[in-house]
Amino acid sequence: MTEKKAVVLLSGGLDSSVLLAYVLKEKKMKTLPIVFDYGQRHLIEIEAAKKVSESLGCGEVKEFKIALSDFKGSSLTDKNLNVPENDFGKIGDNLPNTYVPARNLVFLSVASAWAEASEAFYVFYGANSLDYSGYPDCRPEFVESFEKTVNLGTGFFFRDSKLKISAPFLYMKKSEIVSLGKELGVDFSLTHSCYNPGAEGKACGKCDSCKIRREAFRSAGVFDPTPYA
Amino acid sequence: MTEKKAVVLLSGGLDSSVLLAYVLKEKKMKTLPIVFDYGQRHLIEIEAAKKVSESLGCGEVKEFKIALSDFKGSSLTDKNLNVPENDFGKIGDNLPNTYVPARNLVFLSVASAWAEASEAFYVFYGANSLDYSGYPDCRPEFVESFEKTVNLGTGFFFRDSKLKISAPFLYMKKSEIVSLGKELGVDFSLTHSCYNPGAEGKACGKCDSCKIRREAFRSAGVFDPTPYA
Repeated sequence: MTEKKAVVLLSGGLDSSVLLAYVLKEKKMKTLPIVFDYGQRHLIEIEAAKKVSESLGCGEVKEFKIALSDFKGSSLTDKNLNVPENDFGKIGDNLPNTYVPARNLVFLSVASAWAEASEAFYVFYGANSLDYSGYPDCRPEFVESFEKTVNLGTGFFFRDSKLKISAPFLYMKKSEIVSLGKELGVDFSLTHSCYNPGAEGKACGKCDSCKIRREAFRSAGVFDPTPYA
Repeated sequence: MTEKKAVVLLSGGLDSSVLLAYVLKEKKMKTLPIVFDYGQRHLIEIEAAKKVSESLGCGEVKEFKIALSDFKGSSLTDKNLNVPENDFGKIGDNLPNTYVPARNLVFLSVASAWAEASEAFYVFYGANSLDYSGYPDCRPEFVESFEKTVNLGTGFFFRDSKLKISAPFLYMKKSEIVSLGKELGVDFSLTHSCYNPGAEGKACGKCDSCKIRREAFRSAGVFDPTPYA
């Protein structure tokens, strides 16, 4: 049997790092990690992604440049906007200002392009629908619809095997992801979650992403090695 | 009533140039044209796109760089592969080697990102399901499914107005598109269709795209100003 190959969307954050370990160690697939330089203010996450992949033996990370920051409107890419503090989004509420227009739709599309070109039949996506910042692209209905779309509009349409868009953490609590990562030997000190890191790369401890991360470690009873400002 | 805005996917080719004129003159919308530098061998089409938009008064063309050529596997982006001659694809056949993995899925996703960031509620896409090279992303089922996906996975999910992915040429013959372009005053000499242009930008006259174009002008009884090699 030939080895199964999977493109893994990697951000250098907690979820996608655990996901990468999961695909390699539990699914036993050959991993093709991809990370995006989209003009985000926390470019440090690209270095984190590379270190995480190297530490797990998951192969070279494909770095893909795409200037979503050109489109403006998000505090993650526009240095004139402030990343909010104490502003947890909730499902059904308005979008948080850290939302980057159609970002994950673009990422999934590019990941699918790479899968198609590499004859990989899996794209792994670390979306989580429970503990998250209120982004619409972390909802299961979107993931299902995207999978249908990509199989209609690419070369997978002509194949017997279709592309599977797999989001295994959709229904997991963030604390369960931390526990799984510990089990799989993920070095959490290499991962990066903060939306608004300081000059030396220290996490701010105040943005949504820092708060969700801290709470997940606390709730899982796992030590959080993140250096907070 | 506020002016309606529409992102228009422009390639500098025949269909998308007529589409741009159609959105401006028949739909009376403000046009936001976008063209992609994806590492294609026919970069001349980007210049064509800009000239077409300027000639129609459709505003500055957004040029978006995205290195799909990194993924290899298509003769449109890989200079080690030959663009085929005498190799018309048919629907249901295998993919032609000019197919770029998931290209139009990526383009539509980026166009949707720009629409969302610009508060535009329309993306126009010049796909044509009749006279084409056998690409799966020119099928109506794909366009419908993409529209559903983008409205589930972006900020449009929270809005009353959804994003419309409009492909008005899906069921038109290529010759009808030529006739419409003539009616709308498109300067066909500025448009570019060839997949494999010579050093001076002359169309090869032999690739699928040249053949389909020539036949469309002939059938419409419209003069084709293209300088063929």
